[in-house]
Amino acid sequence: MIRTPSGEDSLIARYFKPLATDPGAFGLVDDAAIIPASGDDLVVNTDAIVEGVHYLPDDPPGTIARKALRVNLSDLAAKGAVPAGFLLTLVLRQKDEAWLAAFAAGLGEDAAAFGCPLLGGDTVSTPGPVMVSVTAWGRVPRGRMVHRFGARPGDRVMVTGTIGDAALGLRILTGKAETAALDADPAARDMLIGRYRVPQPRCGLAAAVRDYATAAMDVSDGLAGDLTKLCAASSVSADIALSRVPTSSAAARLLAAGSVELETLISGGDDYEILCTVPAAQCEAFRAAAETAQVALTDLGTIVEGAHPPRFLDGQGRPAALTRLSYSHF
Amino acid sequence: MIRTPSGEDSLIARYFKPLATDPGAFGLVDDAAIIPASGDDLVVNTDAIVEGVHYLPDDPPGTIARKALRVNLSDLAAKGAVPAGFLLTLVLRQKDEAWLAAFAAGLGEDAAAFGCPLLGGDTVSTPGPVMVSVTAWGRVPRGRMVHRFGARPGDRVMVTGTIGDAALGLRILTGKAETAALDADPAARDMLIGRYRVPQPRCGLAAAVRDYATAAMDVSDGLAGDLTKLCAASSVSADIALSRVPTSSAAARLLAAGSVELETLISGGDDYEILCTVPAAQCEAFRAAAETAQVALTDLGTIVEGAHPPRFLDGQGRPAALTRLSYSHF
Repeated sequence: MIRTPSGEDSLIARYFKPLATDPGAFGLVDDAAIIPASGDDLVVNTDAIVEGVHYLPDDPPGTIARKALRVNLSDLAAKGAVPAGFLLTLVLRQKDEAWLAAFAAGLGEDAAAFGCPLLGGDTVSTPGPVMVSVTAWGRVPRGRMVHRFGARPGDRVMVTGTIGDAALGLRILTGKAETAALDADPAARDMLIGRYRVPQPRCGLAAAVRDYATAAMDVSDGLAGDLTKLCAASSVSADIALSRVPTSSAAARLLAAGSVELETLISGGDDYEILCTVPAAQCEAFRAAAETAQVALTDLGTIVEGAHPPRFLDGQGRPAALTRLSYSHF
Repeated sequence: MIRTPSGEDSLIARYFKPLATDPGAFGLVDDAAIIPASGDDLVVNTDAIVEGVHYLPDDPPGTIARKALRVNLSDLAAKGAVPAGFLLTLVLRQKDEAWLAAFAAGLGEDAAAFGCPLLGGDTVSTPGPVMVSVTAWGRVPRGRMVHRFGARPGDRVMVTGTIGDAALGLRILTGKAETAALDADPAARDMLIGRYRVPQPRCGLAAAVRDYATAAMDVSDGLAGDLTKLCAASSVSADIALSRVPTSSAAARLLAAGSVELETLISGGDDYEILCTVPAAQCEAFRAAAETAQVALTDLGTIVEGAHPPRFLDGQGRPAALTRLSYSHF
């Protein structure tokens, strides 16, 4: 299925065939792949990353590959699905063997680590920026995909990991001044950069999300904007305590120094954490499952009735006025 | 699943939600789509088309959309699969509502005509050329996908439709001199341009390909090169009669006038016909099925033993020396 105008044949055989370990991939010599019949529903998702938009031109090729796959695995995890395979579309400016070798190595390591084999794809040339598009699918028991809709008043709003690190990592990479307070701390800088370049999809939490969440999505375009979407899809609103938004110690230092605003963190993109709503009675069991999966979990607030956007409340219980909810492409 | 940074929300709701008629698409408000469990194998394929590479910047948006979907439907048909749904990744320079409206209209008509609903996708921005990537899947009874491998000595080599029209259509659009003989015949020119812009996937022949073909693929990068790939995958060779290559009357006129060589037609891309091999004993039944499906079918020659590339034989039975087998991106 990787379409191979003759110039690409050797490229694909050399770099991508070793990743096509699933029998349904037919070693990438056929025009299509097979997903065998099974009793599970398939959850399918596609996300593309573009050079200069979702990653920087001089990011290491291995991290670009990992990010392209992981942003899709993050969606699957939030839907309660176990990864099953992916297709890769590579839009390249030229045949750069060193870049491709590093790209394929990173991709192969992640495909193996997440149990998500390459099944096929397409490689085309462009005079413009490089683009990597992945379509991934996962399995859920029939009828068990977790939706954006489904949140009910009284549900707790939970989020995994920490928020805003990736937005800060991007600011470091692009030389923005507000991260100067970390100039003397290379480990903190590297951590934030790493969070931008290589998201950590919460695949280990997929089964628990399926078992306990009434609604879920991954946070990719900013916590504030994504929660707004979840609430709109569920026809509810939410009250969130700004002070509860989980931050890394590096982010907390920048907040404490006044270098960045919390608003920047909750409207920044690229977190790839799971945002979900869980009935109060299930929270303990959900917490226990997260602990077993070694995924940090924070209770941000509560789902309430109403059609208004979620309120982000400050220490005095006053709604903060957010000027920017999320990243937008247009 | 169409990921919607807030600026894209209205765009997607307006233009693409009406196309998402399948219940598994959840009206495009969720982060992923569902393909429900069934007893069929799923055949998946992905092909991207890039502005300036696979279509021209001033091609009508509706034909760009149709081509993006149809090149994938063509692959599915050659694998014996019935279309079931697709994901769309749109990489756009800017939000051009008139372009999008026409694009979505063409896409919606084809999705309905081919019974292949939109299930989700991703929309991202780029400073470079526009790109449209489609991942489509279809259903085949368990274990019944037709492969590139499987051709056996003695099988007949069959191809649908006519070869080389799209390559000539592109030459007309790019103002190449060799089509001057058609300058006075706008209908012939329009036919060739139409063959370049809007391929005709042979979906009606999918069941017959499944029932009778030992190997099959769609011709997308040139008949000569694609047959070479099919033979290599099957560990066989072929003897093809050049005089049998089916051409349209417009192409035949250009050949007769000496304006183009047959080599140009059999190495040009974008035919999107089905190339397959059929045991001699099954040819009559396959022909009858093609007639019922109203798809023209031509017997090009025979599969032979050997590891050498297929031979294209002239009127005297001498192998023609082809300098260029197919289109290559790199």
